[in-house]
Amino acid sequence: MTNPSPTKDWRAAVANKRKDLDARIPPEWRLSESFLSSLPNPRHLLSSDAVKNSGVLTPAELNITEAYSVAQLQQHLAQGTLRSVEVTTAFCKRAAVAQQLTSCLTEHFFNRALQRAKYLDNYLQREKKVVGPLHGVPISLKDSFLVKGYQSTIGYVSFLEHEPATSNSALMDMLLDLGAVLCVKTNIPQTMMTGDSDNNIYGRTLNPHNTDLTAGGSSGGEGALVALRGSILGVGTDAAGSIRIPALCCGVYGFKPTAARVPYGGQASGEAEGVPGLVASAGPLAQTLNDLELFMSTVIDAEPWRYDDSATGAPWSRAHKPDTSVLKIGIFAEDEHFPLHPPVKRAINSAVEALSKKGHQIIYLDNNTNKDLDLAYANRLGFQHFIYAPHTDHITPSGEPTVPSVAKASSPMFTGPFPVPMETEILEKIKALHAAKRKYRDAWRKVWVETGIDVILAPGAQNTAVQHDTYGWPPYTLVWNLLDYPACIIPYGKASKDLDPEPMDVKDDMQPSYIPTATDGAPCAIQIISPQFHDEKCLAAARIIDEDLR
Amino acid sequence: MTNPSPTKDWRAAVANKRKDLDARIPPEWRLSESFLSSLPNPRHLLSSDAVKNSGVLTPAELNITEAYSVAQLQQHLAQGTLRSVEVTTAFCKRAAVAQQLTSCLTEHFFNRALQRAKYLDNYLQREKKVVGPLHGVPISLKDSFLVKGYQSTIGYVSFLEHEPATSNSALMDMLLDLGAVLCVKTNIPQTMMTGDSDNNIYGRTLNPHNTDLTAGGSSGGEGALVALRGSILGVGTDAAGSIRIPALCCGVYGFKPTAARVPYGGQASGEAEGVPGLVASAGPLAQTLNDLELFMSTVIDAEPWRYDDSATGAPWSRAHKPDTSVLKIGIFAEDEHFPLHPPVKRAINSAVEALSKKGHQIIYLDNNTNKDLDLAYANRLGFQHFIYAPHTDHITPSGEPTVPSVAKASSPMFTGPFPVPMETEILEKIKALHAAKRKYRDAWRKVWVETGIDVILAPGAQNTAVQHDTYGWPPYTLVWNLLDYPACIIPYGKASKDLDPEPMDVKDDMQPSYIPTATDGAPCAIQIISPQFHDEKCLAAARIIDEDLR
Repeated sequence: MTNPSPTKDWRAAVANKRKDLDARIPPEWRLSESFLSSLPNPRHLLSSDAVKNSGVLTPAELNITEAYSVAQLQQHLAQGTLRSVEVTTAFCKRAAVAQQLTSCLTEHFFNRALQRAKYLDNYLQREKKVVGPLHGVPISLKDSFLVKGYQSTIGYVSFLEHEPATSNSALMDMLLDLGAVLCVKTNIPQTMMTGDSDNNIYGRTLNPHNTDLTAGGSSGGEGALVALRGSILGVGTDAAGSIRIPALCCGVYGFKPTAARVPYGGQASGEAEGVPGLVASAGPLAQTLNDLELFMSTVIDAEPWRYDDSATGAPWSRAHKPDTSVLKIGIFAEDEHFPLHPPVKRAINSAVEALSKKGHQIIYLDNNTNKDLDLAYANRLGFQHFIYAPHTDHITPSGEPTVPSVAKASSPMFTGPFPVPMETEILEKIKALHAAKRKYRDAWRKVWVETGIDVILAPGAQNTAVQHDTYGWPPYTLVWNLLDYPACIIPYGKASKDLDPEPMDVKDDMQPSYIPTATDGAPCAIQIISPQFHDEKCLAAARIIDEDLR
Repeated sequence: MTNPSPTKDWRAAVANKRKDLDARIPPEWRLSESFLSSLPNPRHLLSSDAVKNSGVLTPAELNITEAYSVAQLQQHLAQGTLRSVEVTTAFCKRAAVAQQLTSCLTEHFFNRALQRAKYLDNYLQREKKVVGPLHGVPISLKDSFLVKGYQSTIGYVSFLEHEPATSNSALMDMLLDLGAVLCVKTNIPQTMMTGDSDNNIYGRTLNPHNTDLTAGGSSGGEGALVALRGSILGVGTDAAGSIRIPALCCGVYGFKPTAARVPYGGQASGEAEGVPGLVASAGPLAQTLNDLELFMSTVIDAEPWRYDDSATGAPWSRAHKPDTSVLKIGIFAEDEHFPLHPPVKRAINSAVEALSKKGHQIIYLDNNTNKDLDLAYANRLGFQHFIYAPHTDHITPSGEPTVPSVAKASSPMFTGPFPVPMETEILEKIKALHAAKRKYRDAWRKVWVETGIDVILAPGAQNTAVQHDTYGWPPYTLVWNLLDYPACIIPYGKASKDLDPEPMDVKDDMQPSYIPTATDGAPCAIQIISPQFHDEKCLAAARIIDEDLR
């Protein structure tokens, strides 16, 4: 066959890949056609208890995947009251079901996970001790993390030509040393730069609350998988919201740490390294705040700098928490360029009211009146950090089409001009961007000093999960990447067409409008933020807030 | 007068400045011509006890400046058993004497310091409490720090035209809040980029051990002043060795922290900000290791991020120290391109032997045989970070001449080519430099992991303090800036023409040769290094080592 049409080629390559992946799901873990066709449309996978009703998991397996926190699993695994093989089997089956319902996975290796679990069970029996603090705990990783023997195509068909990884990402090596069991890698968008985890290899990840809605991105596979409890601890990455967006779309907890606290090194990327820009973080998604904290403290206690030259050696400081359980909470106000959908606004107001009643001190920040804090400007500045250097096109070479959310090319540029003229000479541009970022950071520094707040409470987005390919630009998450502040998503409340019946038409072409019937039942969330390197304090405050909101 | 000759102009401007500064030293603090002419040549100011013999300080003032650690001063000041005015007077007088002996100061403001001291005494009496933990402790700062009402000319005559500062550097604001008393700013080289603190405004800082030798640079004024006990706590900055070189030249302790742990923001600089390069640190010089630790813990407890948007929020972790008092010490071997002078070699060998006898485990690192750790390459890489972007010439505009150490243009380029071809397009160059730095960091990461060492023990330089304008390039300090590792200088031993009588001719044109008679009696030192953000551990290990070497 000479001169093949690229179109034919890419489809064949994808078909092969999917066939290979599908074949790795054992027949007895497959969902029947009749079950799939019995699901409602839109499929409310969570409220209709689709996993349980699938019949794939035994009652014991359902219990293992639903009844435990990571700390509880840890304890049972260490004491041998749960075997790693049991736990891994349960989570692998649940992940396989989640995959069939939402396309949340990329690579998966259930057999390998079970072999690892067997090894861990034998080790415990033989040595009477655990391999590490995460002995037997099943983990999922975003597709960008490298796992020896498997590909990290990060949604580019052209990357299907890459050989399987010959080394692990730093975090993967660390998690193995800690005793964890990696079961699956999870889906992302083509380019990893949109709020829709959709690509031409693995398809589109659906939101388990309502499959007509996005699961968010770029760690959207994690969001859907953790929401369905196909993973008890997932790891995503976040340069503009990519952990927090899936968390808030899928109604789970998500934490973007200060950059370089969790090993980020050795991941697949479509972009050149070393362009001075915003530094992405790796961080956890989970069902509880305790699970996030456990991940962070366990990983940082294991000394990330030993695994990753780019990770900091700063220890996890258990003393670094708010002075009292009564917090001074700064409220980040809605920005006129990025109006909040009524359910989001209702969630924030409800949280503020509840926290005020619990005795916390509420301070409204002046981010709308103080021009130095301008959110739209910060987003244009952040955006310019992403786009000022030439990008490599990994889409065209395979002939695959651009997915709709990438084609849409969301940006905050409808709010104003670039902070630094784009035609500026490159070194001058870098210097000017650096100066602009420092100025913006300094304006926020003054807010912390002048108000004495412990944390900021902000929306995570204008919207809840919205219809596919409408998510748009993520203003309320990116701003904290620009500042390198740790930020935590706490699920709180639900969208309701009854409580918020009026549609809201967003005037720009970029951001989603509120359609009450479309998002009815979608999770709402709040975001808790603290200064750089205050990750411990951020999570400690988030825990106080979370408990006071339950 | 039209079209003045620049030469005439710059000399007049300097003469005015010096006249103004000299007039700020009260007549009764001045050294007599007869005293000055009685000093030996070369002037061994320390061994001949020049400060005491000057007769300027009373016995009580000599005692205040010689008998206390910072912690002891703190305690006396807080209890009122020493008044701030007494302490400030003593240190101001001693600094004035040091200035007349070594030209170690730039701006000084004794009256203002005494007013501040009076305020602090009144405050303590009235309020029965201290302003902060450094209540009444006198401090000196390198000239680059801004102090309201004074200039930061950083040795450029052209900067004499600048208005006095209208704001303080972040660290200065913090030190005031902590209760400190700033007495003086200290001398630096023209350009702040050489090991000789020499410029056309403030002259050349001399080494108090032997005024024929350099005091080091760029924080050379601090080195000389602290060695003469004209300051009990000095703050310098270090991007290639600028704290550690004066410390090792002048026989005092010096600590270069991980970047951004001590507030660095708001300093005068001759270079454009925002060029992706090596990040400089601010850090202390002092007479004891305890004083260094006290500075670090006090400053970081006061939350640098509140003062400086570029400072990290990582707390000072008192738990972050070696597991036992028996250390695994990695010895950084002499590099063939940068041969050690015999006294330096003798000091290192003696320290290693003594530490081994105390039971510490000694591990010789393979930095000569492992090409990935090549010191010469690291220095060329570091050097390229300093020079790849266009520099601003602040010398020519005033007509002042280039000082000899700047004219010499020291560099490590005699050891090989630039790591990245200099003609590479700028963004590609930045990416390549970033990648090269990460690769070098990763090679060192592996050393820590594979050897399990707690700290590295290395020379601080090839040489001790050497004759003026011969210091050359600083290979043994810059490498730790490239890695952003904290590094501590511990004075240890002395050069001796009797113990090391053979001269050593260094073959390149750049680095100093060993001349036994010239450096006889100069201090030797060792350098203790730990990974990034292990500042607490570095100082804790350095304290163990220091105690075991006394």
